[in-house]
Formats: sequence, C-alpha cells, structure tokens
Amino acid sequence: IEKLQITSKCRCIVYSLIRLSKKKTKKRCFFIHTNGSQKWMYGGLHSNMLLQYVAWVTYPVVLITFSAGFTQILAPQAVGSGIPEMKTILRGVVLKEYLTFKTFVAKVIGLTCALGSGMPLGKEGPFVHVASLCAALLSKFMALFGGIYMNELRNTEMLSAACAVGVGCCFAAPIGGVLFSIEVTSTFFAVRNYWRGFFAATFSAFIFRVLAVWNKDEETITALFKTRFRLDFPFDLQELPAFAVLGITSGFGGALYVYLNRIIVESMRKQKTINKFLLKKRLVYPAVVTLLISTLTFPPGFGQFMAGQLTQHESLVALFDNQTWYKQGVAEEFSSHVPQAWKHPQVSVFITLLLFIVMKFWMSAVATTMPVPCGAFMPVFLIGAAFGRLVGESMAAVFPDGIHTDSTVYPIVPGGYAVVGAAALSGAVTHTVSTAVIVFELTGQISHILPVMIAVILANAVAQSLQPSLYDSIIRIQKLPYLPELGWGQEKYNIRVEDIMVRDVRYITLSSSYRDLQEALITGQLKTLALVESKESMILLGSMERSQLQSLLSQQLSRARRLEYLRERAQDNGTHVPTFPQDSPPRTGRGVRFLIAEWEEQQLEEAVNFNNCKIDPAPFQLVERTSLHKTHTIFSLLGLDHAYVTSTGRLVGVVSLKELRKAIEGSVTVTGVKVRPPLASFRDSGNSSSVSEVTELHKLWSRHRSLPLPREPNLPDLDDQTEQPSEGSLVNETECTELSSQNSPLHTDDQSELRYADATPQEDYLAQLPCDCTHPLKDGGSEAVGEQSPAPVEKVVSEGSPSPSKGQPE
Amino acid sequence: IEKLQITSKCRCIVYSLIRLSKKKTKKRCFFIHTNGSQKWMYGGLHSNMLLQYVAWVTYPVVLITFSAGFTQILAPQAVGSGIPEMKTILRGVVLKEYLTFKTFVAKVIGLTCALGSGMPLGKEGPFVHVASLCAALLSKFMALFGGIYMNELRNTEMLSAACAVGVGCCFAAPIGGVLFSIEVTSTFFAVRNYWRGFFAATFSAFIFRVLAVWNKDEETITALFKTRFRLDFPFDLQELPAFAVLGITSGFGGALYVYLNRIIVESMRKQKTINKFLLKKRLVYPAVVTLLISTLTFPPGFGQFMAGQLTQHESLVALFDNQTWYKQGVAEEFSSHVPQAWKHPQVSVFITLLLFIVMKFWMSAVATTMPVPCGAFMPVFLIGAAFGRLVGESMAAVFPDGIHTDSTVYPIVPGGYAVVGAAALSGAVTHTVSTAVIVFELTGQISHILPVMIAVILANAVAQSLQPSLYDSIIRIQKLPYLPELGWGQEKYNIRVEDIMVRDVRYITLSSSYRDLQEALITGQLKTLALVESKESMILLGSMERSQLQSLLSQQLSRARRLEYLRERAQDNGTHVPTFPQDSPPRTGRGVRFLIAEWEEQQLEEAVNFNNCKIDPAPFQLVERTSLHKTHTIFSLLGLDHAYVTSTGRLVGVVSLKELRKAIEGSVTVTGVKVRPPLASFRDSGNSSSVSEVTELHKLWSRHRSLPLPREPNLPDLDDQTEQPSEGSLVNETECTELSSQNSPLHTDDQSELRYADATPQEDYLAQLPCDCTHPLKDGGSEAVGEQSPAPVEKVVSEGSPSPSKGQPE
Repeated sequence: IEKLQITSKCRCIVYSLIRLSKKKTKKRCFFIHTNGSQKWMYGGLHSNMLLQYVAWVTYPVVLITFSAGFTQILAPQAVGSGIPEMKTILRGVVLKEYLTFKTFVAKVIGLTCALGSGMPLGKEGPFVHVASLCAALLSKFMALFGGIYMNELRNTEMLSAACAVGVGCCFAAPIGGVLFSIEVTSTFFAVRNYWRGFFAATFSAFIFRVLAVWNKDEETITALFKTRFRLDFPFDLQELPAFAVLGITSGFGGALYVYLNRIIVESMRKQKTINKFLLKKRLVYPAVVTLLISTLTFPPGFGQFMAGQLTQHESLVALFDNQTWYKQGVAEEFSSHVPQAWKHPQVSVFITLLLFIVMKFWMSAVATTMPVPCGAFMPVFLIGAAFGRLVGESMAAVFPDGIHTDSTVYPIVPGGYAVVGAAALSGAVTHTVSTAVIVFELTGQISHILPVMIAVILANAVAQSLQPSLYDSIIRIQKLPYLPELGWGQEKYNIRVEDIMVRDVRYITLSSSYRDLQEALITGQLKTLALVESKESMILLGSMERSQLQSLLSQQLSRARRLEYLRERAQDNGTHVPTFPQDSPPRTGRGVRFLIAEWEEQQLEEAVNFNNCKIDPAPFQLVERTSLHKTHTIFSLLGLDHAYVTSTGRLVGVVSLKELRKAIEGSVTVTGVKVRPPLASFRDSGNSSSVSEVTELHKLWSRHRSLPLPREPNLPDLDDQTEQPSEGSLVNETECTELSSQNSPLHTDDQSELRYADATPQEDYLAQLPCDCTHPLKDGGSEAVGEQSPAPVEKVVSEGSPSPSKGQPE
Repeated sequence: IEKLQITSKCRCIVYSLIRLSKKKTKKRCFFIHTNGSQKWMYGGLHSNMLLQYVAWVTYPVVLITFSAGFTQILAPQAVGSGIPEMKTILRGVVLKEYLTFKTFVAKVIGLTCALGSGMPLGKEGPFVHVASLCAALLSKFMALFGGIYMNELRNTEMLSAACAVGVGCCFAAPIGGVLFSIEVTSTFFAVRNYWRGFFAATFSAFIFRVLAVWNKDEETITALFKTRFRLDFPFDLQELPAFAVLGITSGFGGALYVYLNRIIVESMRKQKTINKFLLKKRLVYPAVVTLLISTLTFPPGFGQFMAGQLTQHESLVALFDNQTWYKQGVAEEFSSHVPQAWKHPQVSVFITLLLFIVMKFWMSAVATTMPVPCGAFMPVFLIGAAFGRLVGESMAAVFPDGIHTDSTVYPIVPGGYAVVGAAALSGAVTHTVSTAVIVFELTGQISHILPVMIAVILANAVAQSLQPSLYDSIIRIQKLPYLPELGWGQEKYNIRVEDIMVRDVRYITLSSSYRDLQEALITGQLKTLALVESKESMILLGSMERSQLQSLLSQQLSRARRLEYLRERAQDNGTHVPTFPQDSPPRTGRGVRFLIAEWEEQQLEEAVNFNNCKIDPAPFQLVERTSLHKTHTIFSLLGLDHAYVTSTGRLVGVVSLKELRKAIEGSVTVTGVKVRPPLASFRDSGNSSSVSEVTELHKLWSRHRSLPLPREPNLPDLDDQTEQPSEGSLVNETECTELSSQNSPLHTDDQSELRYADATPQEDYLAQLPCDCTHPLKDGGSEAVGEQSPAPVEKVVSEGSPSPSKGQPE
C-alpha cells in the first residue's frame, strides 16, 4: 500500500510536471496561433494589398522553414505525428533516438513554430510524442534513484499512460484521451494500465484548465469548445437518418483522406528526380507548400470564400455555434465577428462551407506531409465539423420549422450536426470510436450522444473496410516494424505456424567452433541466435544475443591474444618482435601476415567456450500446429520480435515478425507463395480435425520406435545427415507418407524456392559450407588479414538489427 | 469485406433481438417497480394503518419468496449478480449450466420479481448475465447454420460484447457500458472487441430509448435521469477540495460495503446451526430479510424519516434535483411531490439524508445476499447520490451565496454533489473509473467532469488499497477459479516458475499400460494429462484430454470385448455361454466374476494403443525461469488453465491456476511454505543477473555431458519409481527430499481439504487406490462386476473438472 501511495504520488508529480512543461508549449503555440503577429502585421497593413499579401505569406513560410530546418538539424525523428512511432514502441520494438532529450527539444520548438504558422496542421500526435518523451526522460531520471523505475515493463506502463496524457491535455478530455490512446496504440490493453491513464490524464486536463482560470481566460473550469445547444429536445428521432448519412459519407471521406495522404508521399518518392531534388534541398518542399496554401487562404483573395482569415480555433468555435447560418439577415445577430467570416455578401453560406471543406481537405493532406512536427487530427476534425455544419444547414433549409409534428416548434440545430460530423470524420480517419467521447468532453454537452455514436460507428465501418487508419498507413509508409490487425474470417484459425515458419534457422551448438559462430553471425538476421544442444538432437537450450557472440568472437581473436601468440612464436623462432607493434603490424611484411592468418584459422577451429555468456534460457516457443490467430495474439500481447518453433523440444523453425506480417496480409510468405497452404482448406474450421491429429500421432509413434530421432522424420539416415542442416524441410505432414522420396528436391514445396531467391549470395555461400566445414574460410584467407575477421561481423550486425528510424517521407 | 458486412449485420440483428428481449424484461420490471400494485394497495388503505402495514409488507415478501423459490427450483445458477461468473467465464473457465436456456428463464423471471418487490436490489449484474445468456444461446443457434459462429473464440467475443450490452442498456449508457464491462470482466482487453462492444451497446441503448419515445414517455431520445444544472458556471474551483473529500469518504464507504457484504455471508456460513437451518428451509432467509427491510421502510413508521415511500428511480430523480433542499420554505417550490418525501415537518433534511444513507447501506448489503437474481450496483449508486446530496446541502448551508468572490452570485448546486457522490461510491465498490462516464450518460450533462473524475479516482485509490472489488469478493466467496490481479512491487519479477510449479506431474508415456492410464486418471486433477515420450527422456509430446483417455480405457474394458473373451474362453472350456448375457452377467456366479477380474487384469497390463486418439500437440509451455509476472500475463491473456514447464523439451513440472493464484496472493504455496523462495532475495531486481545465468549455463553444460538426464535430481533411482504413479504430488522441492513421506495424507494441503469436504466418499475411496496399484481393484472386485471399472473413472472426471457452479452463498 505504501508503494502504491508513493508510486501514485510520483506519478502525480510526474504528470503535473509533464503537463506544466506541455502547458508552456501550448501557451506559446496559442499565443502565436490564435491571433499573434500574423494578424497584427496583416491588420496593420490594410491600406496596401500587396504589402498585406507579403505579410500574410512571409510569416508562415519563415516559421515552417525554420521549423523544418531546426528539426532536420537537431533530431529528424521529431518530424511527423509521433503516434505511429509510439504504437511501434509500445509493441515492444526499440526505436533508437525516438525518446531522447534532443528529440524532445526539437519536437517542442518545431511544433510551436509549425502550429504558429497557421497551416492546417494538428497537434494531437505531437502532443502524444512530447508526453511520451517526458515520460521516458522522467523514467530515466527516476531510474537514477533505483527502485521500481529500473524495470523495463514499468517504463512501458509509463509510456502508455503518457499517450493518454498527450491526447487528454490536447482537448482537456481525460476520458476521451485515455480511450483514444488505447485505440490507436494498443492491440491488447492491460486493464491495470487503464486506471493509471485516467489518473494521469485527469491531472493533465485539470492543470490545463486551471491555468486557463488563473489566466483569467475563464471564470471556472469548463469545456474547451463549450456549446449551448438546447437540452430539452436536442434532436428529433426522425433526424437520425440524416445523421447516419453524415456518418457514412464521413467514412468515405476519411478513407479518401488516408488514401490521398499516402498517394502524395508515395508519388513523390517514386519520382526519382523530384525525390533527389528534395533530398538535396530539404527546405524547399515545406516552403513551397506553405507558400501555396497561404496564398490560397489570403483573405482578400480566394480566402474570402473559405473563411481564410480564421484560425482553426476560431473556425471550430464558429462551426459549433448555436445559430442557423443559412437564413438571411441573421448575420447581425451574431455576437462576435467570428461567424461573419463565413458570410460573404455575394456567395451563399453553402458555397463557402463547400469550398472550405474541399480546399482544407487537400491542403491538410498535403500539409501533413511536410517534414515538420505535426499531426492531422485537428484539421480533419475541423473539416468534419464543417461538413457536419453543411449537412445541418441543408437540413435546416429543407425543414425550416423542424421535423417534429407536435405543437411546439423545435428548429433543427446545425451546430449539433457539426459536432456529429467532427466526431465521425476524425473517427473514420483514425479508425477510432472514442472521438465520440472526445467531442462530448470538448463541447461540454452529451445531449447528442446517440447521433454521434451512430455516425461514428457507421463512419468506422465504412472507413475500416476501405483503407487502413492514418497511423497504420504512416507506419507502412515509413516501413516501421509492425504487426497488422487480424482481419475477419476464419482462415486465420486454419493457418498454422508450420505453414509460415522459416525452417532454416541459424543456430549454434554447444560444440560449435568459433568459425561456426562467425558464419552464424554473418548470415543470420535476427537479433538473437538459437543455442541448440547438438546438430543431431537439435534440442533448444536457449537463445543468445548477437552482441554476446560478437564479444566472444572478438575475445578469441583479440589483438592481445594475437600479439601474445606472435611473441611466443617469435621466441620460438628466435626472431625479434618489435616492442611497440601496435603502430605497425604489417611492416614485418607478408611473413607475419601469413602467420596471423594461420593463427586465426587455428583460433577459429577451437570450440567455443560458453562459460561466461549470458543465455536467455526462456526464448519464446511455439509448436508447429499453433494457429496463426494464436500466434498473432501472443506476438502482439507479449511484443515479441520472433519465436522459435519447437517440436518436442527440438528446434524446427523460427517465426519472426516479418513472416507473421506477410502471413496476415495474406499476400506472400517469405518465400513468395500464397500463404494459405494448399491443404488448409481441407482442415476443418475451428474444430480440431481428428484426421490430422491421428496423422500427427503416427509420426510420434514412429518417432518413438527409433528413439534417438533425427530432427525431422524425412531424413532416412542419421549419420549421413548430421553434417547437413536439414534444408528443404517444408514438407507437409500429409505428404510424408513415403519416407524414401522425401529427400528428393521435389518435396521442397513452392515455399522454400523463394527463400533462396531473395537471400542468394550468403545463402548460397552457406549452402556450400556445411559440406566442407572442416576447411578454412574460403575468401577470408586471401584478403587483408589485419582486423579482418571481426569487421564484417560488425557490419552485418548494424544492418541486421532493425533500426528503421530514418524512414520519414519527405 | 463481405464477411465483415454480414457479421456486422448479424451482430446488429442479434443485439437488437437481445435488446428487445431485455426490453421486455425491463418494461415488466418497470411496471411493477415504479408504482405498481404495492403502492396502489398501500394507498387505497390509508384509513387503517394495520391493513396498510400488512399490504406494504406482504407484497415484497411474496414476490421475493416466489423469486427465490422459482430460481431455486429451475436453475440455482441464476442467483446473484452474474458479473463474477461472467468474469470467470471470460477468463476461459467453463462454468457448466451458467449459459443455458433454463438459467435464462429463471434469471429473467426471478429478476423481474425481485426488482418488483421494491427491495434495495440492483439490476446491472443480472442484465449482464441475461445479455450474455442471449449471446450464448444465439451463438449456439447460429452455430446450427455453421460458419463463423462455430468457432469458440468467436463465442468469447460475442460474450464480451454482450457484457457491454448488459451494462449499456441498463442505463442507456453505451460508452459507459462498454468501459464498465471491460473494467469488471477483463484483465487484458483485445481492442478489436472494443469496437464490437460499442456497436452492440449503441444499438441496445438506442432501442431502449426509442421504445420510451414510442411509448410517449418522452418526446425524443434523452438521458434517463436528465439533470438541468446550469452550464455556464457548473462549480467553483474552490469547491474542488469538497469534491475530493467526498471522493475519499466514498472510497472508505465502498470498502466498508464490500467488507460488510462478505462478513454477512461468511458469518452465516460459519454458524453451522444457522447454516443447516437455512439449507433446509431455503425460503426462510429471504422472507425474513424482506420482512425486516419492508417493516423498517414502512412510510407511516420509520420510513417517514428516510423517504421510505420512494422507489429507487424516484429517489434518484429527487437526489439529482437542481434545487437546494436545506432552506426553509423551499418545499412548496418543488414542482412534483417527489422531493417532499425528503422533507419531514419535524426533522431536518440532513437527518433524513443521514438516516437514509445509514439504513440503506446495511439494508442493501444484507439484501444482496438473498438467493434471488440481483445486483448491488444500483443501491450503491443511490446511496452514493444521497451521500453526495448530503455533502452538497452542507456546503450550500455553509456558503449560502456560493464561494465565488466576484459580483455574480453562483450558489452551490447540491445536485452536482449528488452526481459526484453516486459515481464515486459505485466506482469504489466496483473498483472502476468508468462509473464517471456512466453518470454523464445517465444525467445527460458532462459539465461536472472534473469533480467527478477526481472523486472517482480518489475513491478508487482508497477502496483498492483496502478491499477487493465487490465482484472479486463474490468470486472469492463462491470459490470460483480466478486469477487475482498482480499487485504493485517488484517481487513478481523475481519469482520464477520453478519456485511455484508442481514438479510431480501426472503423465502418460507412449509405452504406458492401460493400468498406468487408469491410475493417472484417478490421481490427476487437471483436465488434461501430459503425454511424454518415455519415463527416461520425459520429452513432452503433447497433452490429451481426460475424456479421450477414458474412452480409450472403456474401449479396452468394454462389455463387447469382455463378452467376446468370455465366449472364447467358454468355447475353449466347452461350457455353454448364455445367448443373451447382457441381462445377467453375475448369474454364472463367482467363477465368471473371477474370470472377468483376471481378464481385466490382463487387459490393463497391455500397452495403450494411441492410434485413434486426439492429441493436442501444442500444450502451452513455460520454462523454469519464466517470471511470475510473465506467467501471470500469459495466463490471463490466453485464459489458460494450466501450462507445462519444460526444460529443453523435457517435462519438469506443471503450473495451474491454483499455484499461480497462491503465488500471487503471496501467502503460501501448495505445500505450505512461503512462496518467496530463499534465493529470490539474492537475485537482483529487474536486470538479469549474470551470476544466475552462468549457473544456468553450467547446468546445461553438465547436462550435455551426461545426456539422458533423470527427470528430477531428487529422485535417487529411476527404475524403482516407474511403477508408482507419483502421488502426493503437491510436494515442493524443498520438502520432497524424502520420498518416503510423500504418500502420507499430511501433504494434501488446506485447499484440497475443502474439496474433500464437499465430495468426501469418492475422493477418499480414490485416495486409497494408488498405494497398492499392482493389485486388482480392491473393493471393485467384491462388488458387482458389471460396468464396474469404467464407472469410477467417469465419476472422478465429473468432479475433477472444476465446476464450482453451486457455490452460491445463502
């Protein structure tokens, strides 16, 4: 209980701090954002339109260019939303440099400038990232004092609470923030983190709003975009179809937005000339985009038809307004100047809204591809609100006295439609339903709960069936390691691990020589290597990290040991060895070089001494018949990177995220064939079929008769095969009735073919090796011998470990 | 995509149906509940107080007695809330009879009567159960047409959506419903189910409210308990401390409620005379409780001081009222008669509220222990509202002109306190924060979001540190198989599976005889048995279900085979065998009986033929060094019942829910030692210590040298042990140094004691068996030989599988 208290207090303080630091950011943004210097410059120059234009355009261009440049120089990881990266990190993937202090500084300053420019950019994603950065840095800081913060799992919990804080303080919406962060970052959610998220998000929202009170902006704590719809009759039952149509249309719009955003990035990437140019002149693209957008929104120009002079905040306040705009002569009733921006003397409000929607739609899709810290939620939310307002105004025009047939006239509330539209479109783009909760907290009214829920659900249904969510789309664009959601349909239960696993596992045995180690390090790609008992038994003992093995190898071939050998050798031969040989190993010429090569050969032949290694004795294991569904569940739950497949304790394969992803996407396996194996359709759905089970037993049975089993029943003779790591093993069990034919290459089914194709040089090289593994390394000996052997290993490692942190599209 | 559409549609229809059926229930309850006959009877008799009293009391007593009797006769599983059972079921435990049509009927009718009685009982839990019943029955029905509903995982998804529906339609609160159901039923939640829950809950809430509109109860769809607090200044910042105090007090109150409820049940159970009496006369207890409670609430009697004449619904409406009650002379301003019930001519409203809180508190704690279908959420919610109103009225009395210091006077709104109190107390009792969302949806106003969140979080913090949640408490009382939450603190990362696993696993080998099979079936308790390769290698091949093994055994000893043997034997001996021996096996007397016994002995000696068995080749495996934290995660994620512990493919132990539970509760292991192993403190916290890893490697290393390892280092001689199916299995490694003591009954720990207690005769009978397993069945031989040998096995099975469905306290 004490610990609980302390932790809670820590957490409370921690989040207050986070909130405060974020608050500062926000205030700064707000200051520049809402009215700030742009308007001041623009307003002061109303005599000269050219000067006005220059002022209107220069300001955002300078800010965005500075933001892009600053971020680029300090920490390119700060670019973009941050939610996709957080989703990946919470899945257990380590993205280096994403949670450092540098990134924090870059993100905060970059975001402030980007938001201040008035471009249609959002802040929700970056806020999530900033909150996570705070949490990570605080965890690191707290870990200095030891205790509970040293545990990595605790850090993950901190991060998931931080995501909730990020969303929550963006809108002062604690509940919606928690739910939204769960939906966009998790596949499985630990309910015990839920409470923590609420706790942190409530504090952040509280402090956010309290600061507004202390600042005398507000009299007391209220909602951010407070609406004042009537409570007693918020909407008529017969308006529900209109809300449903609004939801469905938003669904299509959301899918279109995601598609548009991806197309823009991908088309720029494909065009090699554009791509090269942009890579050279990184700041040109944001500057051009900003120039274009700010030109179009110039209020005396085209901007007058799309309320270009309003900031996002002002637009939202206006759109959620309680009045009905379409009526003539209502304009003067407006208390503030804000909604007047929507009224144009010549043009109907419907045209203004339509133009606003269309222009903002592509503008924000383009703007969010700029290499500055920015999100897309807020612009989408705004577009949705405008679309809802458009539908609402149309409804109000069609039914001027409301639909209700009783004596009382309840006119239609277009502001309510705006709320529904905002929730629906942002829900469709992000594939979340918690935007519904966010709008309630944002507007302070929950009276439209049913229309909002219905529209959000319909929008989600449409959007989810057409496109991935915006964040998943970005993850794919950036090629982050991820695991897609399981789709609908029952095939997932029929595909088994044996259908997708890689059978040719890199492993080392207890009796491996250092040469084997070297080869395993060169050819493998996973971060860990399997340790098996021996090639014959293949019993999995554990897994070892690459770094461990590298240090073993470099110890064995260390300079100190080499020198010692040379010295001994020299003493034996009576020749003189230089006293400071460090500076000049090759000066003694070919003789010494040959000596060293010979020595290294000898050293590599020795058996590895594992005595001081750290071994993970519990690598995650699956069996061949684990279903894809279960595998997916386990991978996403435990945040695995790979899992070994064992059959009765023997290592038979490995499944990594890559195979799983391909299997789920249903396209191709690692090896190029359709993942659905030819026999999957014969297995019955869901129920375990007795036929295949019985076959399985036969295998066990026959296995039992010849006790010291080969690793696979396919190999007819044990002793001949021991030197060959069994290749072409993808034989389906129903096919292996005849033992004699199993070694023929015909039985390596279509899957393995392809594996050869995409990893040719090393794979082929390796494939030859085991046959003559007693010989020295073939090409190693002929080249420079100096530090040659550890070097390639190092290189492989830095490629092999997945660090896709630079995949930001530009 | 098509499938998605179809599934969604199905789901939609399904839930509409559920909702409709539930709607009917609700309407019926409503009818009896809100005014109904009790009031009518009571009102019509106002001339004679005695008759009035009789009418007031008889009505609930009859209804409750009928409800208890009806439920008892038809389906005792329908008693109680249903949420604890659903939590257990969603954890993957099969509770028989909990999701049958009979239970459905009993629950619906029993609930209707119980609610109609006007006792302080809730309907949230039963609604969850009813919705789950609908989902389960519909799944079964849909499975008739095949397709996706045949999959068990799909059924679990249906159930979790149903829970959301149950809560959602109780309050017309779709979002709160989903969140509440997640919090009370899940440990880990699949985000993909979240969407489904929202979908279903929205439909249910929609239909619930639409029916109210069609019924002309409401003009349009609005909240159930609509409040009309002012929007522009809902509360002052300086009121927040009062809300915090309210939250903390509610936390203590919630913990007290859970404690009280448990104490009542347990004290009645311990008092053997009371217990015996109540078991005989099952209907006496509810009748007496109802009589007591309804006497106390009799309006002309004590009820006048606690608004006894109001139903729960009316009380809530009154408590959420916008007026301030404490002022004199305000009474006549009330539009309806309802709040007048709270005003007593002689007694202050504070006293009335206090009496209401205290009386209702113990009343509902007692009432929910009655054996009728009932929940506790609603009464607790009501008490919380009353407590909040009390605090609010006190605040209003202390600050008659509000706290705000500016020119405008904003008086304090006691109704807002009532809302906060309701959320806080119900949140404390159930350990949820989503009650905050429920009150927003229930009242249709979200203006008090910050006070509500703060109070709920504080209440949860207090209550969680004092008591388990009400549902967990009931789970413990009913001894349902469950897995407690991991607490705070880092020990969980230091305890390993090897510290808690049972090392003496029941297994069968490929060369087992039928006798071994029989013994394994008799002695084991888990639903599945491990299949290992041989006793020497102990390599785990898979697991088999008990039922499989039973059918193997009964095949081997089948009547057909026995008769065939007898016939052959008879032909050999030349004696005549009767043509229809089925009717009269024992008539040939002792000779044949002996023959059969001999034959059975022979049959039992044969090696088992596993050829037609279903084997699960992928039982879940852990390794010895898996941490408790990871084990808990995996168990709760995958809903496991047990997992085998393997060391390099060899079976070394098994961990079941029971061991895990004990380890987490930190009390004692199965064997009575403290779970924290002596070495745990030497392991360092969090970081993997190189010392232990190296030790591990040494073990592997030495293991490599002497290949065929004994299964346990403790067993001195393997061959001696082979004939003894290891009994007294609950021996921890620290205790099992002496093998000789393992057969003594002393080692059956306190848990199994209990199991013995409620199933004594057969268990004892079984306990004798294994000691002399080479002899024929002792008491089996002397009795009728007919179907003797398969029979006890059958019996054991039905006990062995955990089906604690009758643990309902009375």
